Amino acid sequence: MAIGNLTGRHWIAGKAVPALEPFFRATCAPTGAALEPDYGDATHAQIKLACELAERAFAEYRRTSPNVRALLLEALADEIMAAGDPLLDRCHLETALPRERLLFERKRTVNQARLFAQVVRDGSWAEPRLDHANLELNSPDCRSLWLPVGPVAVFGASNFPLAISVVGNDTIAALAAGCSVVVKAHPGHPGTCEILAGCVDRAIAKCDLPPGLFSLLHGRGHDVGQTLVQDPRIQAVGFTGSLAGGRALFDAVCRRPQLIPVYAEMGSVNPIFFLPQTLRDGRWRQWIEPLVGSITAGCGQMCTQPGLILGANNQEWQELRHAVDERIHAHPYTLLHPGIADGFRRMVSQRATQRGVAEVVSAQVSKENCSNCQVTGMVFDSSVDELLRNSELEEEIFGPTTIFVDYESTEQMFEYARSMKGSLTASVFATPDELESARLLIELLQTKVGRIIFNGFPTGVQVNHAMMHGGPYPAAIGQFTSIGTGSIKRFARPVCFQNFPENLLPEPLHDQLRNATLRLIDGKFVSNTAQS
Amino acid sequence: MAIGNLTGRHWIAGKAVPALEPFFRATCAPTGAALEPDYGDATHAQIKLACELAERAFAEYRRTSPNVRALLLEALADEIMAAGDPLLDRCHLETALPRERLLFERKRTVNQARLFAQVVRDGSWAEPRLDHANLELNSPDCRSLWLPVGPVAVFGASNFPLAISVVGNDTIAALAAGCSVVVKAHPGHPGTCEILAGCVDRAIAKCDLPPGLFSLLHGRGHDVGQTLVQDPRIQAVGFTGSLAGGRALFDAVCRRPQLIPVYAEMGSVNPIFFLPQTLRDGRWRQWIEPLVGSITAGCGQMCTQPGLILGANNQEWQELRHAVDERIHAHPYTLLHPGIADGFRRMVSQRATQRGVAEVVSAQVSKENCSNCQVTGMVFDSSVDELLRNSELEEEIFGPTTIFVDYESTEQMFEYARSMKGSLTASVFATPDELESARLLIELLQTKVGRIIFNGFPTGVQVNHAMMHGGPYPAAIGQFTSIGTGSIKRFARPVCFQNFPENLLPEPLHDQLRNATLRLIDGKFVSNTAQS
Repeated sequence: MAIGNLTGRHWIAGKAVPALEPFFRATCAPTGAALEPDYGDATHAQIKLACELAERAFAEYRRTSPNVRALLLEALADEIMAAGDPLLDRCHLETALPRERLLFERKRTVNQARLFAQVVRDGSWAEPRLDHANLELNSPDCRSLWLPVGPVAVFGASNFPLAISVVGNDTIAALAAGCSVVVKAHPGHPGTCEILAGCVDRAIAKCDLPPGLFSLLHGRGHDVGQTLVQDPRIQAVGFTGSLAGGRALFDAVCRRPQLIPVYAEMGSVNPIFFLPQTLRDGRWRQWIEPLVGSITAGCGQMCTQPGLILGANNQEWQELRHAVDERIHAHPYTLLHPGIADGFRRMVSQRATQRGVAEVVSAQVSKENCSNCQVTGMVFDSSVDELLRNSELEEEIFGPTTIFVDYESTEQMFEYARSMKGSLTASVFATPDELESARLLIELLQTKVGRIIFNGFPTGVQVNHAMMHGGPYPAAIGQFTSIGTGSIKRFARPVCFQNFPENLLPEPLHDQLRNATLRLIDGKFVSNTAQS
Repeated sequence: MAIGNLTGRHWIAGKAVPALEPFFRATCAPTGAALEPDYGDATHAQIKLACELAERAFAEYRRTSPNVRALLLEALADEIMAAGDPLLDRCHLETALPRERLLFERKRTVNQARLFAQVVRDGSWAEPRLDHANLELNSPDCRSLWLPVGPVAVFGASNFPLAISVVGNDTIAALAAGCSVVVKAHPGHPGTCEILAGCVDRAIAKCDLPPGLFSLLHGRGHDVGQTLVQDPRIQAVGFTGSLAGGRALFDAVCRRPQLIPVYAEMGSVNPIFFLPQTLRDGRWRQWIEPLVGSITAGCGQMCTQPGLILGANNQEWQELRHAVDERIHAHPYTLLHPGIADGFRRMVSQRATQRGVAEVVSAQVSKENCSNCQVTGMVFDSSVDELLRNSELEEEIFGPTTIFVDYESTEQMFEYARSMKGSLTASVFATPDELESARLLIELLQTKVGRIIFNGFPTGVQVNHAMMHGGPYPAAIGQFTSIGTGSIKRFARPVCFQNFPENLLPEPLHDQLRNATLRLIDGKFVSNTAQS
């Protein structure tokens, strides 16, 4: 599959498989034109084939050493870089994301693959644990290790066509864990998906690994995804997208004879809490630009976009609100695809008519001025009173909009924090004089969100070791982060080996180990075998 | 609440709350007589009250230091020991488990509390991770820690009235993580539960912790449990019991507005695979007694009981089968309570009539000779052919029974291993000449079970660091072990703190740390702050 020479086919275990009618095409987000080639929904037989080959490839891949898996991840990074401009160009056409952003996102994707390669080589992520036999206590030798679960179904997001898509956080984590992968391509950027599938296939071939390790299936409706997660060979699901989409997959999994883990990151409103002093004495001015930047990053199409901003109802608050509103109205936004733009227009229209909600400045959303994908930003205001009455205000609207919600007292703000739904993030702004209020608020938020940002904004998720991108439902399903090195465990589970001869044990559980993998040996952490 | 002076009341946050009609009583398992006092189903208002007080207590308890939590667990161990003979006597009456077994189980329970106290003091379990800001990469400071999720609903098992009940693996893990607990008492041993609730209450009082940290609710039907897991304050569920019971709770949780994690350990058949050489040349004789011991441990009422035994169809196999059968028939078994005995009789009768299944020796189960709880053991035989056709043979029968299944070839044995349902354990017997077959089999089993035992038997779950008591569905729901120190994480989740001043961070995330907690700092594991 040559880059830039798109076929419209599914790629099953390294082979192009023709798509059948009815066909669909990606939309050129900047112009609204349909983009060649035609893509089609994978058939049940194609889905079954991909899963069968994924299971066979898993049986081989799981035997590979950490170094082989690390080499695969590094080869993948190299292939993505080698795909060069044709990848970025197609991606720009399909998503309207500017080149600068795509360069940044590609770097994140490639760095993630390389970081995970390091983690896999180190081996500590799999928590090797050795409890030697104790004759006095009559206890047998037990050793455990997190091992890969099997073929994983991956569903990428619309808004990160590189970092959270075909070779994004789920695929990289699954390959790192030792799993094979079947990806359901996002119908918003099928061409980008096809180019990336080529990168994966070439990396697999370069490492002499079985082609069934990876397949890419296209599909516009829900049927392909539902069928995929119900295939008995699939042993875990990774999803990033909407609450409705994630929940539908979870429900489909509940109908399987065998329940399997579903990891879904489904977005949230990511409230920002401004404590009263943070806006006083002109301090509000310093927050205008970064706040606008966070609300409109990626045209507001971010899981961590701040969709709800709380502040004390006073003059400074109103000035901040107006200043933000003015800037958000300054230019139109080209969203990822027409479906998202339609959804955005529908949801902001609904919000504008809700009780106790007003537009900060009444802006006519003129259809004439907007192409399929173009929209006008929209800023609302309301009060915590209304928010506590109407949980619809906590619903995420994907796009350039937010709602300013004012509180009458910090107690009222705490009341919201106590009752709020699960969210990926919350941000707390406080001055040094407000640390006690901040402490109480942060304590409440610890049971509500995955990440708390202090005097900062939620957009920009770091791919590191400490990241937690997840949170209580409805922000996510599953206890692990979906981004950062903690995400590998999603696709593994511990297996205990009791009374085993060393030659039948996985290498990290041997008494003597050559590398510095950290292990828990008889209750003590040891990274040097000499100490054991 | 004095020991031995049972009230029949629910214990909500340290206070006795009267039970309402209709009442139920425990059955004296050895005699079949009803035991005083009367217990009743908790009302919706009582369940709500317990959850409200658990939420309030959580808000206080989560602020406590690791040392305070460790002291609570140690106080709990002391109180269980101090409860002395009245606890063991009541427990024996309610379950028919002999004193020797109860002494062993009490020791395990107490040792578990003390081991978890050590793990909590050490603090490494919560995976503190620090990624410092990097100005060059424009990355912010991110630090994460696994924090308690909130009030946990706990459902104990019938078969371990001490180790997997009111103060068993779930309650101890939840308290270790920093959660409060509402326990639904097992209706088979309500008096034992009431005595143990007194132990927890006294330990909480001794440590000056809020009484709402623990409540005990009785209930005979499903309603109390269903209502409990649907209370919005409950943030996780720990369950040990049957597949039907665990799945019903999972389904109830799926109907909540907020999905929460359900951890269920639901038993399995725990197949034993004898490779052909292991029985040859009279070797089969050495396995008779330990195999009978494993099948009939706790009268066969063990989650890890070997309910399916595979061997090559030859003379030695038949001799082993007959020898085991003879011993299992040697005496009657008194099961935990009449419901379990009825279920056992019904299921062995059904199995006896299934196609391709025979009793090894036809034994008449005489109702006249058996009290409510007494049953006769039963050994069946069948073939892998039948097993592959009829998945009902993979269903667990709780009690003193097993099925010997013979294979025509090792390939046929592998075929079963490839298609088998998820199980807690599998055991592999192989001689030094059979290591290659064993290796292939073990590889297949790694995706099917939580624990693999080599040349040994599955009963006897060690409470250590490396234990994995769990496995793919239907053996369990959830990726973590339910027994051993890995189980604490079930009741916690990571929270990331970004750009925080040190005085607002949890102590394990401070730059300088006094104790030796292992931390992942900028990608390196460090247990001495001097090295950071």
